[in-house]
Amino acid sequence: MTATADIGVTGLAVMGRNLARNLARHGHTVAIHNRSPEKTRALVSDHGYEGTFVASESMADFVSSLKRPRAVIVMVKAGQPTDDVIDELIPLLEEGDIVVDCGNAHYADTRRREDALKKHGLHFSGTGVSGGEEGALKGPSIMPGGSKHSYEKLGPIFESIAANVEGVPCCIHVGPDGAGHFVKMVHNGIEYADMQLIAEAYDLLRSGLDATPGQIAEIFREWNKGSLESFLIEITADVLAHVDGRTGRPFVDVVLDQAEQKGTGRWTVQSALDLGVPITGIAEATFARSLSGHAEQREAARDVFPSTNELAWAADDREGFIEDVRKALYASKVVAYAQGFDQIKAGSDEYGWDVDRGAIASIWRGGCIIRARFLDRIREAFDENKELPTLLASPYFVKAVSDGVDSWRRVVSDSAKAGVPTPAFSSSLAYFDGLRRRRLPAALIQGLRDNFGAHTYRRVDAEGSFHTLWGSDKTEHES
Amino acid sequence: MTATADIGVTGLAVMGRNLARNLARHGHTVAIHNRSPEKTRALVSDHGYEGTFVASESMADFVSSLKRPRAVIVMVKAGQPTDDVIDELIPLLEEGDIVVDCGNAHYADTRRREDALKKHGLHFSGTGVSGGEEGALKGPSIMPGGSKHSYEKLGPIFESIAANVEGVPCCIHVGPDGAGHFVKMVHNGIEYADMQLIAEAYDLLRSGLDATPGQIAEIFREWNKGSLESFLIEITADVLAHVDGRTGRPFVDVVLDQAEQKGTGRWTVQSALDLGVPITGIAEATFARSLSGHAEQREAARDVFPSTNELAWAADDREGFIEDVRKALYASKVVAYAQGFDQIKAGSDEYGWDVDRGAIASIWRGGCIIRARFLDRIREAFDENKELPTLLASPYFVKAVSDGVDSWRRVVSDSAKAGVPTPAFSSSLAYFDGLRRRRLPAALIQGLRDNFGAHTYRRVDAEGSFHTLWGSDKTEHES
Repeated sequence: MTATADIGVTGLAVMGRNLARNLARHGHTVAIHNRSPEKTRALVSDHGYEGTFVASESMADFVSSLKRPRAVIVMVKAGQPTDDVIDELIPLLEEGDIVVDCGNAHYADTRRREDALKKHGLHFSGTGVSGGEEGALKGPSIMPGGSKHSYEKLGPIFESIAANVEGVPCCIHVGPDGAGHFVKMVHNGIEYADMQLIAEAYDLLRSGLDATPGQIAEIFREWNKGSLESFLIEITADVLAHVDGRTGRPFVDVVLDQAEQKGTGRWTVQSALDLGVPITGIAEATFARSLSGHAEQREAARDVFPSTNELAWAADDREGFIEDVRKALYASKVVAYAQGFDQIKAGSDEYGWDVDRGAIASIWRGGCIIRARFLDRIREAFDENKELPTLLASPYFVKAVSDGVDSWRRVVSDSAKAGVPTPAFSSSLAYFDGLRRRRLPAALIQGLRDNFGAHTYRRVDAEGSFHTLWGSDKTEHES
Repeated sequence: MTATADIGVTGLAVMGRNLARNLARHGHTVAIHNRSPEKTRALVSDHGYEGTFVASESMADFVSSLKRPRAVIVMVKAGQPTDDVIDELIPLLEEGDIVVDCGNAHYADTRRREDALKKHGLHFSGTGVSGGEEGALKGPSIMPGGSKHSYEKLGPIFESIAANVEGVPCCIHVGPDGAGHFVKMVHNGIEYADMQLIAEAYDLLRSGLDATPGQIAEIFREWNKGSLESFLIEITADVLAHVDGRTGRPFVDVVLDQAEQKGTGRWTVQSALDLGVPITGIAEATFARSLSGHAEQREAARDVFPSTNELAWAADDREGFIEDVRKALYASKVVAYAQGFDQIKAGSDEYGWDVDRGAIASIWRGGCIIRARFLDRIREAFDENKELPTLLASPYFVKAVSDGVDSWRRVVSDSAKAGVPTPAFSSSLAYFDGLRRRRLPAALIQGLRDNFGAHTYRRVDAEGSFHTLWGSDKTEHES
């Protein structure tokens, strides 16, 4: 078999198929392969006219059809299936070839695989791809990790098929080994927070104004013209405006209110705990989904705690309330992103990835689920100050949050009184207040820990660790 | 060497030494061993008069001094040191002997070790011990896991040295393999939440009343006479009343306000994420400690967001405010425990441990850090209904929370307005409101997920999974 293909894709389920088509449409000769050949044949017969595909039914032929150094995209399920395909590829590849995992792998697995392939002289690029089916076909946000060397080959190809914002492709070399999948994981965590915040805003508007989903769709459409402009706000309006064909009721009222999840939110929070980064917005969003799924507990609680929710408590000042909720949503969103970017910084420091936060904000501006106008502001903030300790301290966001803080406080305060749960709104506000508070009661916690466990404490006025003899004369001793 | 000892302890740092002394004081003949023999000799010379110790300087002699089936308590650092000691013990032990790990192991390690020792015909009991140094000596709460067979030997010994409440020892056989260390982990997670809630209550009282730590100590002393009566409330009063010897200032004001942690809170939250149990109180407490430690971020935020905290906003109705905070603390505490016991149930179901939640509440009544009067109420709730879906639905707590809910709402609402961060108070209230709410905006999240990712949704009025063709005619299809 003559080696003519520029890049290969093995695994032709919807994401792999669409990536292959996107590559072919951009003039790349694409080798394609799938375990069961029907999908390979279907891709050629349905979409062969879109570009140049080289179809193979065996992995050996697939590899032989690739120009060297070979670049093979693996697009199968995360976990064992990915390992299986990699194991099959290793003996067929040659030194300098590149294996690209575009699945949703855990970055720890990516680190392990990169290490294993290095021993065979192979490059491994764990690459995050966001944008769903449509993004894969029409231009996703691409987050490749792995060696700089592998990016020399992959970069031009990926940048050609990525989303493009104002002439800038939504793809950069994120960093070595697990960096790409780590950043993609945090992206998904932020997506959880974003969606939870939108859900809380909707719930507040619905209760506070006693409004219909259709009316709230209009509010979100308005919001999408301003600083909140984003893909998620846009589709929120679409979903809220949708009327169920079967019942004629608002679509959102016939959907079972139990949110599901595929695990990346959980991974994000677990990683943040290891890194010591408080990402409370993402955590609350992840737990809110779990809570919604606990039908038996919800039923039990519902029966014994009669609904005390106030309805239409904000009806006297509709415009003021809507504006309060908009500002609260924006401020909470800033917190969620600040926390996510903190986690990227912490992961980058931990693993020596040297991730450029401004560049990440830049490649999230298009193609991905959390694409939003305000990512431009985030990019600017990190470009202005590479070492910015928190997004909340950048001048633009200081002003944005300061402008909204009174609204934010009113919304959180009123929702607590009204009995409308706003875990992400209120947790984000508590984080903000915690961060800016001069003295935290953490000092008391340190005192308690020293009292019952001799864990020692530090002082504000002296170096060192100290222990007080709580059980005897309460003198203090350096330890 | 004649085998005369009933039980052995290897690892004689403070916890091991105190456990050995506690055992000897209760009439058990205790074999003792430590890697460096100085600690063994010191124990004999300082405390030999307290009972019968059989000291050995080699591991082989130590094992030989034990009556069969041998029971060896390993009390060394979690992780590799524990594995090292176990590896040293294996060839010296005989079939039917029992290795007891009383350290703070992760339950996954305990499961692995139990499995490994089973292959050698040995029993392994991962045993949680709570109560710190003093508890170990005077009566801890003991949570042994492992086989029923091993508990036949260990139970009478452990029950004799455990704390005792109204004639009931604070020790039961928790369940197989990792059950003991799992329950101990959740205990520590709850301890994090408890301490964070206390810290928030203190902070609220201090700001809302513009009170001194000494005055607040008096409030906690009062509280300790009622339903909040607990070890942590008691020592909170002590710590707040303490005056720093060096400066004459309140102790709590000279302690650096950066809380540290040793990892069990983190483990608890990570496990809860895997199990799909929303433990928001413990998560917020864990993240609040992380936040407090991020000095650089706090400094940056403090400089740009001027303090807007209101002071003494509650000074007009001091008694009413104090009572509100007390009720909010109690209600939030109920939520934290409800979440922790949910996690125990979920872990027990996941691993087939058959843990009795009422019995766990019972053994936490004494000896451990979270010992509290209200654990009696929790025990009763689970004893009344073994299958209780949530603690919040038990009659006693329905009444307790209902009585406090208005106070709780006022406190969360006012703290949001005043800028006093109450992450655990407000997160617990949001959880409560989420649990009892008839419809959650999770339905919107499902709609969004179906829109951008074809993740499908369920309906309230039909079985099955559905997908709407959002990009075309918006018809619905069963998937």
